[in-house]
Amino acid sequence: MINFKNDYSDGMHPKILDLIVKTNNELLTGYGTDKYTSLAKELIKKEINDENADVYFLVGGTQTNVVGLSLIPSYGAILTCDTGHIATHEAGAIERTSAHPLIHIKSIDGKMDFYDLEVKVKMHKEDQHMSYPKAIYISNTTEYGTIYTLKDLKKLREIADKYNLYLFLDGARLGSALTAKSNDLTLELINQYTDLFYIGGTKNGLPIGEALIISNPNLKEGVLQTIKQRGALLAKGRFLGLTFYGLFKDKLFYEIGQKANDLANELKVGLQKLGFKLYANNDTNQTFVYVKNKDLEYLSSKILFESFVTLKEETIIRLVTSYVSTKEDVENAIMIFKNIK
Amino acid sequence: MINFKNDYSDGMHPKILDLIVKTNNELLTGYGTDKYTSLAKELIKKEINDENADVYFLVGGTQTNVVGLSLIPSYGAILTCDTGHIATHEAGAIERTSAHPLIHIKSIDGKMDFYDLEVKVKMHKEDQHMSYPKAIYISNTTEYGTIYTLKDLKKLREIADKYNLYLFLDGARLGSALTAKSNDLTLELINQYTDLFYIGGTKNGLPIGEALIISNPNLKEGVLQTIKQRGALLAKGRFLGLTFYGLFKDKLFYEIGQKANDLANELKVGLQKLGFKLYANNDTNQTFVYVKNKDLEYLSSKILFESFVTLKEETIIRLVTSYVSTKEDVENAIMIFKNIK
Amino acid sequence: MINFKNDYSDGMHPKILDLIVKTNNELLTGYGTDKYTSLAKELIKKEINDENADVYFLVGGTQTNVVGLSLIPSYGAILTCDTGHIATHEAGAIERTSAHPLIHIKSIDGKMDFYDLEVKVKMHKEDQHMSYPKAIYISNTTEYGTIYTLKDLKKLREIADKYNLYLFLDGARLGSALTAKSNDLTLELINQYTDLFYIGGTKNGLPIGEALIISNPNLKEGVLQTIKQRGALLAKGRFLGLTFYGLFKDKLFYEIGQKANDLANELKVGLQKLGFKLYANNDTNQTFVYVKNKDLEYLSSKILFESFVTLKEETIIRLVTSYVSTKEDVENAIMIFKNIK
Amino acid sequence: MINFKNDYSDGMHPKILDLIVKTNNELLTGYGTDKYTSLAKELIKKEINDENADVYFLVGGTQTNVVGLSLIPSYGAILTCDTGHIATHEAGAIERTSAHPLIHIKSIDGKMDFYDLEVKVKMHKEDQHMSYPKAIYISNTTEYGTIYTLKDLKKLREIADKYNLYLFLDGARLGSALTAKSNDLTLELINQYTDLFYIGGTKNGLPIGEALIISNPNLKEGVLQTIKQRGALLAKGRFLGLTFYGLFKDKLFYEIGQKANDLANELKVGLQKLGFKLYANNDTNQTFVYVKNKDLEYLSSKILFESFVTLKEETIIRLVTSYVSTKEDVENAIMIFKNIK
Repeated sequence: MINFKNDYSDGMHPKILDLIVKTNNELLTGYGTDKYTSLAKELIKKEINDENADVYFLVGGTQTNVVGLSLIPSYGAILTCDTGHIATHEAGAIERTSAHPLIHIKSIDGKMDFYDLEVKVKMHKEDQHMSYPKAIYISNTTEYGTIYTLKDLKKLREIADKYNLYLFLDGARLGSALTAKSNDLTLELINQYTDLFYIGGTKNGLPIGEALIISNPNLKEGVLQTIKQRGALLAKGRFLGLTFYGLFKDKLFYEIGQKANDLANELKVGLQKLGFKLYANNDTNQTFVYVKNKDLEYLSSKILFESFVTLKEETIIRLVTSYVSTKEDVENAIMIFKNIK
Repeated sequence: MINFKNDYSDGMHPKILDLIVKTNNELLTGYGTDKYTSLAKELIKKEINDENADVYFLVGGTQTNVVGLSLIPSYGAILTCDTGHIATHEAGAIERTSAHPLIHIKSIDGKMDFYDLEVKVKMHKEDQHMSYPKAIYISNTTEYGTIYTLKDLKKLREIADKYNLYLFLDGARLGSALTAKSNDLTLELINQYTDLFYIGGTKNGLPIGEALIISNPNLKEGVLQTIKQRGALLAKGRFLGLTFYGLFKDKLFYEIGQKANDLANELKVGLQKLGFKLYANNDTNQTFVYVKNKDLEYLSSKILFESFVTLKEETIIRLVTSYVSTKEDVENAIMIFKNIK
Repeated sequence: MINFKNDYSDGMHPKILDLIVKTNNELLTGYGTDKYTSLAKELIKKEINDENADVYFLVGGTQTNVVGLSLIPSYGAILTCDTGHIATHEAGAIERTSAHPLIHIKSIDGKMDFYDLEVKVKMHKEDQHMSYPKAIYISNTTEYGTIYTLKDLKKLREIADKYNLYLFLDGARLGSALTAKSNDLTLELINQYTDLFYIGGTKNGLPIGEALIISNPNLKEGVLQTIKQRGALLAKGRFLGLTFYGLFKDKLFYEIGQKANDLANELKVGLQKLGFKLYANNDTNQTFVYVKNKDLEYLSSKILFESFVTLKEETIIRLVTSYVSTKEDVENAIMIFKNIK
Repeated sequence: MINFKNDYSDGMHPKILDLIVKTNNELLTGYGTDKYTSLAKELIKKEINDENADVYFLVGGTQTNVVGLSLIPSYGAILTCDTGHIATHEAGAIERTSAHPLIHIKSIDGKMDFYDLEVKVKMHKEDQHMSYPKAIYISNTTEYGTIYTLKDLKKLREIADKYNLYLFLDGARLGSALTAKSNDLTLELINQYTDLFYIGGTKNGLPIGEALIISNPNLKEGVLQTIKQRGALLAKGRFLGLTFYGLFKDKLFYEIGQKANDLANELKVGLQKLGFKLYANNDTNQTFVYVKNKDLEYLSSKILFESFVTLKEETIIRLVTSYVSTKEDVENAIMIFKNIK
């Protein structure tokens, strides 16, 4: 069985496991005050070239969205793609826990439609009975594996500044985004153009862990207490510090993302050659492909994957590669797809 | 330097690490649907002798308090010792995140004063302008290492039933509580007399992990969504399932607690022999001892510990043993204390 | 200038004012414990033929939505028409204050599409990463003046029961709904088929005031505290009790609604005779009519109204009648419209 | 029966009623956009001598506390007297609705102990596991009728500035406070030294209504949306604007407060002459007096009042005068007390 179900089926990258094993006997202080956490923060600040940024390590993606958006003034609403993770697959975490209303913006292949964004912001700002926009939430890669370009990010910053909004970037799959062929962003640029963002670890080889980075000074007060209040402060913070240290000390972060992308791109090329139609074509680690509904049973018996959109006669399925995927996985998958062509 | 600072300075118990290493190459399904999580749930249900209980694995203590108390009807207030963890050291997590008001009850050596509990419940129930009591929160061991007996728990259940309250037990240090010499409770009894409770892993040899157990059917709806909404659902749930599996398959849970207690008791006996006065004397892994303020500097240079209460000429300091503490640590500590007598 | 802007431009019905004037010198107990509040509750319980219902008087519509939905278990999401008041014009009150996520359901002329309702409920119940449906919110009349029939309400109850959902009815304009020609519902039937609902006073001749009625025993605990916690408990509760007493003691409630509807229906007939196209045609007090954009300036100089939907060459405007509108208002309005035909 | 139960048993001051009657037939725009609301805002800005302040009219005291404190950054905790209204008699409104934790500060006769305030602020700021102080809440008059002086307010401002805290003043009984003989504050000074505060109408002759005044520019964004989200935006805002207009156009606000105080002071003098001991002696409209428990039944048969603190043999009862109290009420009450001396 080929596992293209997701990028969190693995335990953790061997280099990370190695660090955990080697340091297990050390007695360290708790709640993120240990030396590995400090080292990891320094590495990240260096990577984003911003000594003044505040870096916090959290456990998971939804948690980091909840904590990050909890820093947005409580009277504000969050602008998100209608396909955004917080709008669809976080069980209403933002509404219930950070208690911000969401405003849904149209999306094109998972990316925010800037025209609709501006229309909605104006409409809401003009009518005091509507929710009050205060932050834009995007994710990179998006839910459909597409990525934002530097031009996109500049445009979003421009809109954010024009309407006095904060800009938050969910980087659960930022490793894949930043190593895509078509990518022209860097961690430094993302830090520069957003107010806060996070770097995902869980879907990039870590057992747990996301790094929240805050550059806007207005959002830097009360953060540790917010983290604690949301139940997100890890007693044995060493496991976050240590693993992010491992991820950034030798650029493992990029290596893991790159490998996942390379395999995905081989897969995409293979599928297209066979005549399969891709949805939201991208060069990151997620591949969305149309398959006939009658072939789903056969495919499911050979490959683990998720169905995304069910249409009348076709289904868009998602195939995800990761650093544990292999060239053989890709080649075998292409063979299997050949059988249904 | 002897480390009696806390019971979460360690990485994790070697047997747990071993499990992680051995299973790292397995590809498993996410969000707690993996086989180890199922096995761990079965072990715990067997241990509490309740097939109908719902078991969820969460990451940390404050998180489990937030999630567990989020299940209490939202109009209700939570009754807690004035020294309770949620009342003092969770940065207001309950008020901000589960949005329940707290009602402070007097405590004696960290245990709830049942008389004051009933006085406050009645007072609040009679005045509709006061917050409305709906749940009792206790922790075992308490913040002062003391423990509740079966008689205590029966009394709390009786009060809870009389006033239509839920009973929640915070078991961050339940391993130590259940292996104390004076203990007469079991996981089965705790499950029987509470509506929901949790078994702490982080302070008992795990890297992360607390097991929330819900027996009251009224509290079983929407739990997974609540966990997700509080940012507490782990993508790689395997690390929670696996470690709790390790903790319960060969009674490691009790072994770890027992070792911490045994060393603590040796320490207590030693200190008392030297004439030191203990505060909130108990037979669990926390030792509270009065030391003269003038001796703090010397002690701090030899032993890592925390100061709990600062008085005019004395300070109550806390010494915590764990499964990584050694007989030598205890003996050396007693020698050091001898020097200040 | 003809005022068809809304149904809350008036002060209050003269009979209500009379009651306030006559009782002003009485000294009464506070927070809803006065005799007029008791009398009003009795009148309403009689009207709904349910001695066991709990009746509370609140100040405004959004407040009553917030309080009523705050009683829904906190883990649940609220299903609402995409055009529902809570989904559009309450500034995100539900998300921020009762902290429930909303699930948008398609609407047809302001009424919930039952097919889409069931599709969304199933989809959300099957995916634990989506928000968890727990209540259906409808309003009657709807935002477009349309009304639900007994058959509709039975169908909604059926769906609610099938999926274990509560059913909440926002009756801000219930007076108009229940006196519409096509209406076959009564307060008794609404109470019977919903779990909780409210009767609007503000848009039906009262200065302030909405009556929340709870029939489901599961929702009756902690209500007064919830009202207090949401800042919705009026110290001088007499003004709510007294005015609802005035509204129900001689069926003034229906008289006010009837007059508004009768005038609206004359207006609708007149506009249609002139060839104007109505949107979401209904027989309640709101009239939605298409007018050419070029005529808006002229119309605005003669009639106060609100624009609802702006299209390329046309705008759907809303004309609202109330008990203070007159036959002359309607006749004059028709003359004015004649000028733009 | 003499009614000293509270200062909200009345309907409303005749001059206010007169305004309501006279304007009832006017058709006005909703949600606070009417002319009377504008006039009232102008009067208040003039009274506080601050053209830049933002003024909002809300319905009740708890509501205004909830809304005002909702503007404080969500990560912050609120410092309040342990006897403060939000800490005791708002059913946990702040914790549940604005979701801020409270930090209890010792009080002396209802006034905040500045020493304890500073101790607690420092303690909380130093320990990141404790809630994070961000605002001071006081009320004037306090729950015990005592008042803050200019010196007090300057000291509070100094502490607030030192620790980066906002200062909020609950003025539910500000009319009585500002007309007390010993008072040296004015609305202008209060506006100058606080960040936001409110002027109570309900307990000072209005049917409903409190005026929230915000001077700190950091707190001025998203206020209307916050009001709406808390269900506190009145559709017929005219009733708030109109009544505050009536309260301030001819200094009625002070006249009402003065009359209540004068009568209370006669009562206090009378009771002291008879040898009764006063608790928290003050010169505002609340009188707290010790009476023997055996005399409570007799007193209750002659005077309406509330019991505040029940001691072994005595009870501290509260007698409240208002503008509807009379000289005869006071004289008769003194006679009644004479009977139990």
